[in-house]
Amino acid sequence: MSAGEPHSIPCPDPQLAAAAEYVLANPGKQLRAKLVRETAAMLGSADPNCGVETVATAIELLHSYSLVHDDLPAMDNDDLRRGRPTVHRAFDEATAILVGDGFQARAFEIIARDSSLSAEQRVELFALLSQAVGFEGMVGGQALDMAAEHQQCGIAELTRLHRLKTGALIQAAVVGGAIVAGANRETLDRLATFAMNLGLAFQVIDDVLDVTACSDDLGKTAGKDAISGKSTYVTCLGIDGAKAEAARLLNEAVDALEPFGESALALRDVALSMVERSK
Amino acid sequence: MSAGEPHSIPCPDPQLAAAAEYVLANPGKQLRAKLVRETAAMLGSADPNCGVETVATAIELLHSYSLVHDDLPAMDNDDLRRGRPTVHRAFDEATAILVGDGFQARAFEIIARDSSLSAEQRVELFALLSQAVGFEGMVGGQALDMAAEHQQCGIAELTRLHRLKTGALIQAAVVGGAIVAGANRETLDRLATFAMNLGLAFQVIDDVLDVTACSDDLGKTAGKDAISGKSTYVTCLGIDGAKAEAARLLNEAVDALEPFGESALALRDVALSMVERSK
Repeated sequence: MSAGEPHSIPCPDPQLAAAAEYVLANPGKQLRAKLVRETAAMLGSADPNCGVETVATAIELLHSYSLVHDDLPAMDNDDLRRGRPTVHRAFDEATAILVGDGFQARAFEIIARDSSLSAEQRVELFALLSQAVGFEGMVGGQALDMAAEHQQCGIAELTRLHRLKTGALIQAAVVGGAIVAGANRETLDRLATFAMNLGLAFQVIDDVLDVTACSDDLGKTAGKDAISGKSTYVTCLGIDGAKAEAARLLNEAVDALEPFGESALALRDVALSMVERSK
Repeated sequence: MSAGEPHSIPCPDPQLAAAAEYVLANPGKQLRAKLVRETAAMLGSADPNCGVETVATAIELLHSYSLVHDDLPAMDNDDLRRGRPTVHRAFDEATAILVGDGFQARAFEIIARDSSLSAEQRVELFALLSQAVGFEGMVGGQALDMAAEHQQCGIAELTRLHRLKTGALIQAAVVGGAIVAGANRETLDRLATFAMNLGLAFQVIDDVLDVTACSDDLGKTAGKDAISGKSTYVTCLGIDGAKAEAARLLNEAVDALEPFGESALALRDVALSMVERSK
């Protein structure tokens, strides 16, 4: 596997294969893959054959699976994703459920099969990723997010929710890149702090853009939060307050990179691009 | 983790936690867990602390996840499972989707965290399980199964479909138990043959029972195949023909156990109970 090459998935059912291909052919901004790559590169592991691309692909598969399931009618009921009809619109709901299910398994499979990673590294990646996407991570966060549509949330609850729903996988991308590079515990902890603050800043800006951007720019339906009456960083803090909170979180994130000096510049640029974006 | 103790799952959302508990509290016959245990015991690894129970739990989590998703309205639209309302009936569709998603992640997580298994064993188990439940296994088989509702299938297509949909996880249970016991390649291959024939025999009987048993006995809706006009081993072979085919497959399975002699008696009994069942 090398950078930029689209992942291909063997699948015996033609419609399911087509739906998987439909998602993979339009992979979005791949911010999480960039985080894997730049973290590994910062720590001296730029060789794309040493497992970096496998982890980048696995993280993007997990992210794509979460989007396909979150978009389902029973969840956020979205028609538009990455500028095109969502999978259940382009195909059907059963196919969308199965694509998500299959992507989750595939993410774990490609890590299990990458013998350029040591068995210990693969086990560490498995523990990291399975927790990040599980009940104590992305899945739990999505459940809290749906429950929050029916109640007023304060900043503390929003933060808890988004640490799980969005933050956990962004953190896993950064820590995953560091595991591939053979980082020690102290480095892993420092990068986890960087990534958790970055993940929250990213989500705050997501809430801002839902109010200030249009669907064409976002590639997904804008204004959804207001329609669903959901608590967001914007309803809690206002647009300016939310932007200030994003800037504060981004600063905390960037501060955590200080010990890495100039080698962190590319990773810092990815972080800046995730928060200072307009779509 | 020890045999029979129900698995508990940490989850921050109360409704999702309740739904997970709802499934785990009513775990069904746990045939796949028995296959893991009896295979490991046959090969000399009966110590429940050596990873056997972890693998048994993981396989049952994966099986439960597949049932919860397969029962969804967009899939088989079933109201009854293990004698109680399906998860999307007892809770809601979003919760059922998330329970399944979370169970898949949890299965991988508990294996990743079981340090009584060597890193190499865990990697082997990840590769086995992720393929068994992925596009080239259970998920692909479910897609083929749904596609088959709209067309006539012959025995060859049914066999291919059920090898993936039902057989792959049954095979993973047996091979997983053997990996925990440290089996060599020849033993793994022999047990894979046993399990694949057993899995098919199990499915043939499932098709027979859908026609001959009542919903109360099955704990799920009987007669579904006829209503949906689906091709089954019964529509292809008739009831007696299907029973004869199940007996033939069971014989092939049991034959593969011959080299293990008397130590295979308990595993053989599990196999017999799976095929000579009335519910």
